[in-house]
This record gives sequence, C-alpha cells and structure tokens, in this order.
Amino acid sequence: MNLLLRKYLSEFLGTFFLILLGTSAVTIAKGDTLTIAIAFGLAITISAYAFGGISGGHFNPAVTTAMLINKRISAMDAVGYIISQVLGATVASLFVKIFVGALKLPTNQLGQTDFPKISGGVAFLVEVLATFMFLMIILNVTSKDHGDAHFAGLVIGVSLSLLIVFALNLTGASLNPARSFGPAIFAGGSALKHLWLYIIAPEVGAVLAAYCSRFFLGSEA
Amino acid sequence: MNLLLRKYLSEFLGTFFLILLGTSAVTIAKGDTLTIAIAFGLAITISAYAFGGISGGHFNPAVTTAMLINKRISAMDAVGYIISQVLGATVASLFVKIFVGALKLPTNQLGQTDFPKISGGVAFLVEVLATFMFLMIILNVTSKDHGDAHFAGLVIGVSLSLLIVFALNLTGASLNPARSFGPAIFAGGSALKHLWLYIIAPEVGAVLAAYCSRFFLGSEA
Amino acid sequence: MNLLLRKYLSEFLGTFFLILLGTSAVTIAKGDTLTIAIAFGLAITISAYAFGGISGGHFNPAVTTAMLINKRISAMDAVGYIISQVLGATVASLFVKIFVGALKLPTNQLGQTDFPKISGGVAFLVEVLATFMFLMIILNVTSKDHGDAHFAGLVIGVSLSLLIVFALNLTGASLNPARSFGPAIFAGGSALKHLWLYIIAPEVGAVLAAYCSRFFLGSEA
Amino acid sequence: MNLLLRKYLSEFLGTFFLILLGTSAVTIAKGDTLTIAIAFGLAITISAYAFGGISGGHFNPAVTTAMLINKRISAMDAVGYIISQVLGATVASLFVKIFVGALKLPTNQLGQTDFPKISGGVAFLVEVLATFMFLMIILNVTSKDHGDAHFAGLVIGVSLSLLIVFALNLTGASLNPARSFGPAIFAGGSALKHLWLYIIAPEVGAVLAAYCSRFFLGSEA
Repeated sequence: MNLLLRKYLSEFLGTFFLILLGTSAVTIAKGDTLTIAIAFGLAITISAYAFGGISGGHFNPAVTTAMLINKRISAMDAVGYIISQVLGATVASLFVKIFVGALKLPTNQLGQTDFPKISGGVAFLVEVLATFMFLMIILNVTSKDHGDAHFAGLVIGVSLSLLIVFALNLTGASLNPARSFGPAIFAGGSALKHLWLYIIAPEVGAVLAAYCSRFFLGSEA
Repeated sequence: MNLLLRKYLSEFLGTFFLILLGTSAVTIAKGDTLTIAIAFGLAITISAYAFGGISGGHFNPAVTTAMLINKRISAMDAVGYIISQVLGATVASLFVKIFVGALKLPTNQLGQTDFPKISGGVAFLVEVLATFMFLMIILNVTSKDHGDAHFAGLVIGVSLSLLIVFALNLTGASLNPARSFGPAIFAGGSALKHLWLYIIAPEVGAVLAAYCSRFFLGSEA
Repeated sequence: MNLLLRKYLSEFLGTFFLILLGTSAVTIAKGDTLTIAIAFGLAITISAYAFGGISGGHFNPAVTTAMLINKRISAMDAVGYIISQVLGATVASLFVKIFVGALKLPTNQLGQTDFPKISGGVAFLVEVLATFMFLMIILNVTSKDHGDAHFAGLVIGVSLSLLIVFALNLTGASLNPARSFGPAIFAGGSALKHLWLYIIAPEVGAVLAAYCSRFFLGSEA
Repeated sequence: MNLLLRKYLSEFLGTFFLILLGTSAVTIAKGDTLTIAIAFGLAITISAYAFGGISGGHFNPAVTTAMLINKRISAMDAVGYIISQVLGATVASLFVKIFVGALKLPTNQLGQTDFPKISGGVAFLVEVLATFMFLMIILNVTSKDHGDAHFAGLVIGVSLSLLIVFALNLTGASLNPARSFGPAIFAGGSALKHLWLYIIAPEVGAVLAAYCSRFFLGSEA
C-alpha cells in the first residue's frame, strides 16, 4: 500500500477512534464531565502514538488547517486529510447510532455538540478561544526547537481533556469540525442547524493560533 | 530458572494482576465506569513495564494470536503463553471469590462479562470491533518503524481503559478470552453460557487487526 | 519578536491557561475535587511542555521568587515574569466572568480562594506548607543532578493536583498569588479582603523551600 | 550536608508527603475510592521523581526490607531509612490531626487502616498479597536488565493506586507499616490495636517478593 493511502487511512482511523470513544462516553457510558473529557482527550493520545508516526496525527480539520498555514503539510495532503477525518467521524457516529439503538436509548442523542444555554455569539467565542488554546499547545509542543517529541502525544491529549472540562457546559466542547459533523448528520435537529458554527469557529481559532505561533516560536514559515 | 519458564511466569503474573485488579474494581470497590476502566487498563500498563521486558507483555490470548499471525512469536510460545494467561486469570478469580465471600457479597458476582441489554449479534460485533481497535493500537505502537517503545505500555493501558468506557454497558468490555474465562467459571450462570462469544469474538477482532496492520504498517510478515 | 518578550508572553499564556482551565472546572463544570485538582494541575503540565522551553514555565510568582533566590533567574526577568503572570491570571478571570455570566450563574463565584471553615492562622499555615511542598518538588525534579527533565512537567502538574486534593477544603488551595489575584479582583467580597494572605503565605513557603533545597540539593547557589 | 543525612531526609520527606497527601484525601477531601487511590499512589510518583535520585525513593519499610534482602541497600542504611520513614509518617499524621481538628471533624478519623468487615486472617492475607504484588512490580521495573528507569516512578505510583482500589474496602490498603503507624498512634482505638498486622503482613509480602524476584529476574543477589 502506498504511503499516501497509508497516511489518509491513519487520519481516518484516528478520527474514527476519537469520535467512537469520545461520543460513546457521553451516550453509552453516560459518563460525568471528567470521564467524557478523558475519553475524548486520551483517544487523541493513543492514536497519536499509534498512528502519528505515519500521518503526524491531526485527526481534526482545524489542526490540519493550522499545519497547512505554517507549511508543515502540503495543500494536497491537507485535502486528503480532511476528507479522511470527516469520513472517519461519520463512520464512527454510524456505529454509535447502531449501539445506542441496540440499548434502546434515544438515537437522536449521539453526543452531538450544541449550545442550549448560551447565545450563538458567546458559543462562537468559546469555540474560537478553546481551539486557539488547543492549537497553541499543539504547535509549540510539536515544534522542533521548543517542544518534546516523546511527550507531545500525551500533552496534546491532556490539553483536549482540560479544554473539554472548560467548554463542555458551554458549547459541548467541539474544537474540531469533524467531531461535530459526524454526530450532527445522524442526530439532526438543532445540532445540524448549528453545525456551521462548529465548522467555522474552530477554523478561526486555528488560523489565529497558526499566525500567533509564527511570531511566538520565531521559526514557523 | 530457564528463560522459557520465566516468560510463561511473566504471562501468568501479568494476567493474574489484570484480572485481580480489574474485577475487584467492579466487585470489591464497586467503582464507577471510570474507576473500572482505569483499573483494568492501567493494570496492563504496570505489568507491561514490570514484566514486558521478559515476555513482551501480552496478558491476553487474543494479543498472542495476533502476534503469532504476524510472526512476532513462535507457535510453541503462543501455546505456553495462552495456557499461562488462562491459569493466571483463573487463580485471580479464585482470590476475588474468596475476598467477595469474606465481605459477604454475592459470590456469583465476580466481575464476569455478559450482555443482558443487547442481542448476541450486536455483542459479537462490539467485541470484534473493540478488540480490533485494541490490536490496531498495540501492533502499531509496538512496531519498530512507527511505534514508541517507551510509551507503548502506557498507551496500550490507556487504550484498554477507553475501550472499556465504550463497551462496558454493552458487553462488559472483555476484549480478552482469559479475562472472561476466569470469572465465568466461578460465577457460572449466563456468563458461563455466553463464554464462547467472549472467546471467539476477541480472537476474530485480533485476526482482522493482524492482517490489517500488515498492510497498514507495510512491514509485518 | 525578541527573546525577552517571548519569555514574558510564555508566562502570560501559561498563567492564563492555568487560571482559565482551573477556575472554570470549579465554576462552569462544577467539578468534584478530583476534576478540579486535575484541571489546575495538568494545566501546569501542558503549559510546561508547550511553553516551558521558552520561559522555564513558572506561571506562579511564588515559583519565580524561589528561582530568583536560588539564582536560576535574573531579578529583571523575575519582575517581568510576575507582571506577566498577574496579567495572564487577570485576563483569564475576566473571560471566566463573561462565560459564567452567559450561563446566568452568580458572577461573584469565579473560583476565588477563601477559608470560610478555618481560622486565618491555620489558613496561613496550610498555604505555607502546601507551597513549601510544591516548591520542594519543583526545585528537586528540575535540578540538574537529581531531577528528570523529561518528566518534570508531568511531576509538577501532578504535585499541584495532589496538593489541591489536600488543601481545597481548607483554603481553596491557591499556592500561587496570581491564581488568587485574578478571581478575587472580579469576585470581590471576602476573597478580596483575604487576598493578602494568598499573596504572602505562598511566598513564605517558596522562600523556605528555596533555602531548604539549597542544603538538600547541595548544589544551589 | 553530608550524603547520609540527605538520603535519610529524602526518605523522611517522601513518606511525609505520602501520608499527608494520602490520608488527607480520605479525611479532609472525603474523596471517593479513585481520588484516594490517586492521592496515595501518585504521591509516591512525585516523591520518586523529586527525591528518588538521592535515596532511591522507598518511602516504605516493606520496600526497604525487600531491597535489603536483595542487597540493593546496606543494613545501616536500611535502619536509617526505616526510622526516617516512621518519623515522616508520624509528623504527617500530626499535621493531618491539626487540620482535621481545625475543620471540626472527628480527630479519631485520621485515615487510619483497619478491617471492620473481614476477619483478621483474611486481612492478613490481603495485605500479604497486595504488598507481594506491589514489590514484584517495584523490583522488576527498577531492575537493570528488564526495567525502565524513566517510567519506574510513574509505574510504581500507579501500581499503588490500583492496589488501593483493590484492597481499600478490605483492609484500608496499607501495604506500608509506616503508612499505618502514623495515623494509628494519633487515632488510637481499633486501628492501634490492629497495628501489628499492618506491620507484619506487608513485611511478609515484601520478603516473599524479594525471594520470588530473585528467581524471576535471575540476577538479584
């Protein structure tokens, strides 16, 4: 199998693991905030160590966007990565829907992201801020000069966990367009109507972080 | 003591630790999902770092099967490993039964695996899928080319923890024929009747992962 | 951007992350003790791995004071660091106030530190002792002779988590003047009246640890 | 300060941290099983990374006994270590008593170990077994040939956490004579009457593990 396909398959698998393990912690396990945060966050960690050596371990279109801006990935790969991530998330949500249905739980509750308690403006701000923070950690901890390659997978996963503790009650803590896309297309309703926000806001946060880290690191393109 | 015996003893001890620490989190500690998931998962981690240097740290017949298919272990060792794992799990469940009895708790509740809420077909699918995911992580993170030897024990343990959060409410999250065998033979009842599923389904998932990772890694036998 | 500014920005960002992630675990997530402890503690860990390579990763005026006493940082940098930390904490608490308000929760509950159950004398002792312990860990695990550079960020974060489990019910577990300053100036009331204690006591603990570790390590200035 | 004194002070500090952080998770924080397990276990981890480079990081007379049997420590040091550990635990429990009293909680509840639900025989077996497992992990993960020096502190701490999940409801999960001594002498009552069991049983488990690991490792004295 050629390298290109293996890289895309790596992004498919990692994102599949992230959405399956993360959203099933919400729906099947009915976990508390800490359990949900650990499930999503450390799903990134395990996939980063297992598959990151092949694809770099993005598993998130917003991460891929920031890596593209800072020239750590080609435009063609960025497109292939994002398609693979969206497919991985979609297949994961299909599996979760099957298992939720098998448990006779409501199949319109698939761990989708939404913001029933706050305004769209605040939700947008939260997703921008959280994704900005997430990418600042990622871009710095994976940088050649200041980072720590061995601990990067652990640090990035824990960062996502903590940002989920912060944002879960506000926006469902997406920080990842693929993470919101998969559950929303099967759950429908308000989550699907608000999907645009979870696609645009994380991308805005990622773009801001990409430019900030250029100056901060002093070494990005 | 010769090397062969030490390797088998390592598999016995690691599987003993896994089943004792994991199932006592269910029975003696009456832990929530996160506590149970951490107990099983990180029991693998501690045994992997302590005994993995001797035997490779399988502690699971499905892992041994995948390693056999990908020629990382000899057929004779595979048989010795699996016997040691089943013995370790059985002795562990005997201890748990003693302690559960000492606490005057019901001795037919020993942390056995079963699927009271879903059909056998869905249970089979869940165990195949979860074990497939578990082995994809294991085979990749321990691969010479793409893995990370120092973090492998931590990553594999955390992976099991997250897969338990996913599958606990569905099938009890076995992913390991020895893990289901030990408690079932002492608990009897429905768990013993369904034991065949927890032997076959994880093995199917492991075989699928072994062949998939051959292509994915591009370097397996 | 010159190095000096990047170091100060690193301290600003790390302290911002610490206070935003930590106090939102209290206010927005309404987490239990373990969730709060993990949020504050591991926020240090992720910032240490991401930004520690630039500034050393203090994120706490008491840490900076101990580093100054043991001549690991210049007096000018110490002043710049502390100003950056206080600014980071203040901006973080402003964001938390906005999000708490958006959730229609009481905006005088921002995760501020206080000691409603114990006397000021015991509270002072607790903050001195906890910060002393925190700095003894930090100074030893980052020492060239006896420490472990790769694990330092993880160990320091976990240390803060455990010290929060210890002191949360006593004093709110500050150990960090900036961590108390940010929430107190927006929450006002008793927390603002007691702010002096959370500025002085951690600094006393840090000074004691700096001198103790000199003798203990046998190598500090 | 000479090396000998620094080693003993290291054991004093580490055991002080262990008992203060662990028993305050029980008494002051009123944590659940997972919180208590994490507090005790990871207190070992942080002290191992901070002070282990000086003394080896025993913080437990049973560990020192096993190290003495396997000739990893001199008899004189063993005596000095154990005295330091008992002193550290005693001072820690004195502090906990003060803080528990300040919170107006009952000062005969200091996180002492006891076995109200099971017989003395089963309690003895549990402490022997758990300490045996703890020492098997410690002796293997710190062995030159098969261990992992960088991860040892993390693995040992997590091992203690998991063994506490297992044994907390049975015996309070001591595995450490110093851990039982400190709280018992201040709490008195049944814990003091049963203290002999928590001194002898962990030592028996440690001696068994020392001899077992000699054969297992094939390299111990």
